Amino acid sequence: MQVSGIPYRTLWVGDDARSINVIDQARLPGEFRVVRLASMVEVAHAIRTMQVRGAPLIGVAAAYGLCLAMVADSSDQALAEARATLLATRPTAVNLRWALDVMETAVRRVTPGDRVAVAYDAAAGLAEDDVATCRQIGEHGEPVLRELWQRNGAARPLQVLTHCNAGWLAAIDWGTALAPVYTAHDAGLPVHVWVDETRPRNQGYLTAWELAEHGVPHTVIVDNAGGLLMRQGKVDVCLVGTDRTARNGDVANKIGTYLKALAAFDNQVPFYAAVPSASVDWNLASGDDIPIEERNPDEVHSLPGIAAHNPAFDVTPARLVTGLITERGVCPASEAGLLSLFPERTNR
Amino acid sequence: MQVSGIPYRTLWVGDDARSINVIDQARLPGEFRVVRLASMVEVAHAIRTMQVRGAPLIGVAAAYGLCLAMVADSSDQALAEARATLLATRPTAVNLRWALDVMETAVRRVTPGDRVAVAYDAAAGLAEDDVATCRQIGEHGEPVLRELWQRNGAARPLQVLTHCNAGWLAAIDWGTALAPVYTAHDAGLPVHVWVDETRPRNQGYLTAWELAEHGVPHTVIVDNAGGLLMRQGKVDVCLVGTDRTARNGDVANKIGTYLKALAAFDNQVPFYAAVPSASVDWNLASGDDIPIEERNPDEVHSLPGIAAHNPAFDVTPARLVTGLITERGVCPASEAGLLSLFPERTNR
Repeated sequence: MQVSGIPYRTLWVGDDARSINVIDQARLPGEFRVVRLASMVEVAHAIRTMQVRGAPLIGVAAAYGLCLAMVADSSDQALAEARATLLATRPTAVNLRWALDVMETAVRRVTPGDRVAVAYDAAAGLAEDDVATCRQIGEHGEPVLRELWQRNGAARPLQVLTHCNAGWLAAIDWGTALAPVYTAHDAGLPVHVWVDETRPRNQGYLTAWELAEHGVPHTVIVDNAGGLLMRQGKVDVCLVGTDRTARNGDVANKIGTYLKALAAFDNQVPFYAAVPSASVDWNLASGDDIPIEERNPDEVHSLPGIAAHNPAFDVTPARLVTGLITERGVCPASEAGLLSLFPERTNR
Repeated sequence: MQVSGIPYRTLWVGDDARSINVIDQARLPGEFRVVRLASMVEVAHAIRTMQVRGAPLIGVAAAYGLCLAMVADSSDQALAEARATLLATRPTAVNLRWALDVMETAVRRVTPGDRVAVAYDAAAGLAEDDVATCRQIGEHGEPVLRELWQRNGAARPLQVLTHCNAGWLAAIDWGTALAPVYTAHDAGLPVHVWVDETRPRNQGYLTAWELAEHGVPHTVIVDNAGGLLMRQGKVDVCLVGTDRTARNGDVANKIGTYLKALAAFDNQVPFYAAVPSASVDWNLASGDDIPIEERNPDEVHSLPGIAAHNPAFDVTPARLVTGLITERGVCPASEAGLLSLFPERTNR
């Protein structure tokens, strides 16, 4: 997508064909700065501190982290150590594990002398796949938005509510939840986005920033406000991303998503999750077993003497989810729904 | 309640028997400072800027604002102007209108020469009534908490979740939602309070401050976290205040309350509102007609070029409310429930 009219991705390989460049998301929206990461340790640090965040982007960044580890030492032991270090950066997003699995399989297949080249090829493949996946989510989601707009009489811009940032900043390009919004906007559908600020880290301001750069009308609200807006009829659809989706359609996403799903259900507002298949954990029967990352309480506040608790994700039960928008199409939030699009995942 | 071991109320008349002293709540929890308000205009400003906030306290403060107006000019016209100015400070809390009605009735009954004395008497009566009401809410709510604690096997401290500040800072003393917590704590019931930080103005830190001063264990969470905690079984009861309760038991309270009520309902967690009868709007058939104050978007953020929307309250439908804790006892959130405690409000 564009920044001040110049096309960008969130991550690209540097001129030295080794290091990677990323947009420092900890500085947005105040400052747009590109940071060079030249080692696996630097990549792991960038993921842990959320300079680089968003489930799809974390996966690709970790893949390049493994590449940089191979540049330094392409032995089996270095591979195992790098994988463990990168996997430990964030516990909830399953893309991370998935991307590292893909990388490890590709790299282990060849001798240490060939591993650097193979690793960069595999990481580039993951990045391109992510771009294609997000574009397809946009294409499958756009008709959903268009139909809702028409069902509401096309009388006003479609009112979308989103939580956290599942835009292009969270991926390599396009984004997941925002891909249908960009696709619809580009196709001339009038759309306005209510942006939850998303405490404690305020990723909503990343969403506001990227929507502004692309010219999509939007308004920031506190996380508390969405329920009222839905009761007032000011929201036509909720659209969120996911860090891990269980086989039954339960959706783990940024803390607070569940509250919006409850309000959507209570007010008959459709609630969709944009789900790249890489974020589906096919081994998990339900969301109850998804580990919830607990981050530093200092993210909540830094007042002395007042305790804080800071869980980073929650799980929205499938019963509250109208549908999952995947790169292969839209399906009900259920095992049957997911398997109708991904039959190769049927057990035996 | 106590501040650093010294008993305080949130508002008291100064040594000159005219001005009032209030705790400047805009500076808490960072700084404890008492501010002197010496004119009606100063009182109105303090309410508008939320140096003085909380539905019960707003009512009493406005009453003293009317007193100060009478000191300056006790004519009928000055009375009407002061009433209009004070009423316009905050639109949602009904205590404000109720307190001004009580004051106006008392003051109009006498000639201008007697109005100052009558006004101060009436305002003092309102303050004492509020203290008594809050203490009674504490006494009626304490057995509710004790029963929940015992029902849960008395195995851990009772886990209370509250939103915004409905503690003694929001009233004259004791508070509304926190009165049962203080009463239970003082009676030896182990209790721990999850405190929603309550964006955009973070009144949760007022709650944390006053709980800390009283020695009640507590933990601050972002507003997004309560749903997860309830799904995890970490909340035994939600307890909130109200700015206006409709005749049918619909409860208007700080924005975001509705989302917590939805999560409580979805997880079979009891959800109680502490309701002084002065906050019941007997003329409103339902919460749909409660005006929702929209405050300055700058309260959400001050980033240039990013629009914000800032509604300050939402309405929780009575169907999500387990019960109302009033100064006369606990009742179902319904017209029949309220009338069982306040039969004098039965029409005709």
